Amino acid sequence: MIDFPFLSDICQPTDSRIVLLVVDGLGGLPHPDTGMTELQTARTPNLDSLAARSVCGVTTPVAPGITPGSGPGHLALFGYDPMKYVIGRGVLEALGIGMDLGPNDVAIRCNFCTVDERGRLTDRRAGRIPSSESAPLVEQLAAITIPGVEVIVRPVQDYRFVVVFRGDGLSEDVADTDPQRVGIEPLDPMCKTAAASYTADAARRFVQAARDLLGARRTANMILMRGFASKPDWPAFGDRYKLTPGAVAAYPMYRGLASLVGMDVVPTGDDFDAEIETVSSHMDDYDYVFLHYKPADTAGEDGDFDAKVRSLEYLDMRIPALLDLGADVLAVAGDHSTPSTLGAHSWHPVPALISSDSTRHLGAPEFSERACAAGYIGHIPASSLMLHLMAHAGKLDKFGA
Amino acid sequence: MIDFPFLSDICQPTDSRIVLLVVDGLGGLPHPDTGMTELQTARTPNLDSLAARSVCGVTTPVAPGITPGSGPGHLALFGYDPMKYVIGRGVLEALGIGMDLGPNDVAIRCNFCTVDERGRLTDRRAGRIPSSESAPLVEQLAAITIPGVEVIVRPVQDYRFVVVFRGDGLSEDVADTDPQRVGIEPLDPMCKTAAASYTADAARRFVQAARDLLGARRTANMILMRGFASKPDWPAFGDRYKLTPGAVAAYPMYRGLASLVGMDVVPTGDDFDAEIETVSSHMDDYDYVFLHYKPADTAGEDGDFDAKVRSLEYLDMRIPALLDLGADVLAVAGDHSTPSTLGAHSWHPVPALISSDSTRHLGAPEFSERACAAGYIGHIPASSLMLHLMAHAGKLDKFGA
Repeated sequence: MIDFPFLSDICQPTDSRIVLLVVDGLGGLPHPDTGMTELQTARTPNLDSLAARSVCGVTTPVAPGITPGSGPGHLALFGYDPMKYVIGRGVLEALGIGMDLGPNDVAIRCNFCTVDERGRLTDRRAGRIPSSESAPLVEQLAAITIPGVEVIVRPVQDYRFVVVFRGDGLSEDVADTDPQRVGIEPLDPMCKTAAASYTADAARRFVQAARDLLGARRTANMILMRGFASKPDWPAFGDRYKLTPGAVAAYPMYRGLASLVGMDVVPTGDDFDAEIETVSSHMDDYDYVFLHYKPADTAGEDGDFDAKVRSLEYLDMRIPALLDLGADVLAVAGDHSTPSTLGAHSWHPVPALISSDSTRHLGAPEFSERACAAGYIGHIPASSLMLHLMAHAGKLDKFGA
Repeated sequence: MIDFPFLSDICQPTDSRIVLLVVDGLGGLPHPDTGMTELQTARTPNLDSLAARSVCGVTTPVAPGITPGSGPGHLALFGYDPMKYVIGRGVLEALGIGMDLGPNDVAIRCNFCTVDERGRLTDRRAGRIPSSESAPLVEQLAAITIPGVEVIVRPVQDYRFVVVFRGDGLSEDVADTDPQRVGIEPLDPMCKTAAASYTADAARRFVQAARDLLGARRTANMILMRGFASKPDWPAFGDRYKLTPGAVAAYPMYRGLASLVGMDVVPTGDDFDAEIETVSSHMDDYDYVFLHYKPADTAGEDGDFDAKVRSLEYLDMRIPALLDLGADVLAVAGDHSTPSTLGAHSWHPVPALISSDSTRHLGAPEFSERACAAGYIGHIPASSLMLHLMAHAGKLDKFGA
């Protein structure tokens, strides 16, 4: 969270309601032919009109020049400093496939790899075998048992899967078995602290059992384990801001991120219309709602400029429905930029707007990277957006007399 | 102060002189009918012309979304990080009524309250009795003596008053006696550290004596003590920046804040004209002058848009006199926004301009929230404005070779 050390003194529960719409991968870069970004290219009359009535700015997700993954990008928007609140990779991988993690779980990112007859790595990703080929292998591994530890094995995609150890006395302080290069044997899962020797031993048994099950194969005949991580024990969002927060997201990863900070994850459907419906029917249950819109990021990741434009135009058509929700504060922000021209997440500042009764006439001429950068909020760390939302909702008392 | 850890290496005493005009509550919000803020509405040809010849920006007083009181707002402008340099409530209350506090003093915010026949609180503010009713009660309490501790009792307003304990061995680490709710007895003043038991004991004696004096009354028959605080021992502004600072303010609170950071508080009159006169006659005595203008905040707090506009127009007419002072750097800034539409302090960024010989042609088209937000300085923490002033005055050496 932003280091405002007196937050608990000034946060004030009120009846006002905040809706934060996170447009995944919102920011973009200009198309080389037109010089206009996806947001500038898209016909977005509703967002533009909303921007004119809002205060606008741009958010830096983590730090200048730093490209965030989904985890840090969202944590920042929730007001958690992503350089301080770091999510282990195993946990992220588990959240991404919708696994519920308990406090006694250690999650591990795993993948199939290929070793030669002397056990030396020849391919760290087993030729990136497709899910169709890896699925039966994952099923085989799911049969592995370790005394005293519950073992859960779940496929992710292609050569990747997740292993979760569940039980008392487990620890995340175990080193990766992936040596990060071929020609040598996978590393032994070494404990980094004495308290983790039991977990390292469980990992060793799992690897041995996997080798026994897969060893007869020519490829995908071994596994690598990385990112041992347990669910972090962070201050709950609701306690921190004295809010009753609800999260509405069609994708498991974002529900998982919301659950990490203790938000109430509301069951919803597969797409944005279903999400809006869910929010609409729960507006009386929460005074803060995190609403996630995925398609902009997907199109950006695909490097499909036109698809990202369309996803933003689709979003724009849903803005009236969002306004109809009747929130006192409606904010539109992004967890990071995903410029189609890069086909990937990027470090670029992300446009943001905050609409409330107190922001009339201070807005930007349109909702775009350039217009928001010149907006009244200016350039802010994404992790301080939450304070803006709280202030605009009238939920922050004065600091000092 | 802003965390530039090499400040003492680069601060350089010179003959140049800085005048910082703090317009209390400077920033505003648009009037719903016109879409224009107080600053935009006011006819301010001198400020606008000055802005055009200055560099402009907006300051965030404490942190995004945080509404500051006068204390944090001014400390930031003096270059002290208000999240690190926190003023106790008792001290602020004492400063507000112009009391001089010494290093051996503990100041306490007190108020009259009403208890029932069993000593349980029925009204934590004694019906908010007016000053006319509380004045004689304060006078009664002023007669209380405590062995070994000098006791000073001063009225503030209505039901509020200040008690200062003066003497050796006192400590601020005493808990409030206000339980924050009615139906129970006031709390005993408990020491939070062993070193504070002597002070807690003095407080206990004071409360007991007050009860004896007031107990026969039907209302305002008891007192509550809060915010035990001693004067902080902070690095002096003059030492930090190698300046000889003077403060000119008509209101006690602002003189008190200047004295907290060791500025020389210059006696002055009741209004801004008197203040300017005072500055004018002391320009050879100081190389930094803090000059305070109060009416904009007062009008904003009153929710009187037109009065705030008039206060800014009045100020504008005095700008030529400020320019005549001949300062090398003249800055106009605010401790916080006080939008008339809110009738209270707010978190909104505050316009600022810095005029010096090195700033011609980089200015803003007018002195307003919007124009300054797009200014060359951009959005800065208020606590870094001081570095800008020092730089423009040629008082900062190069950092690194």
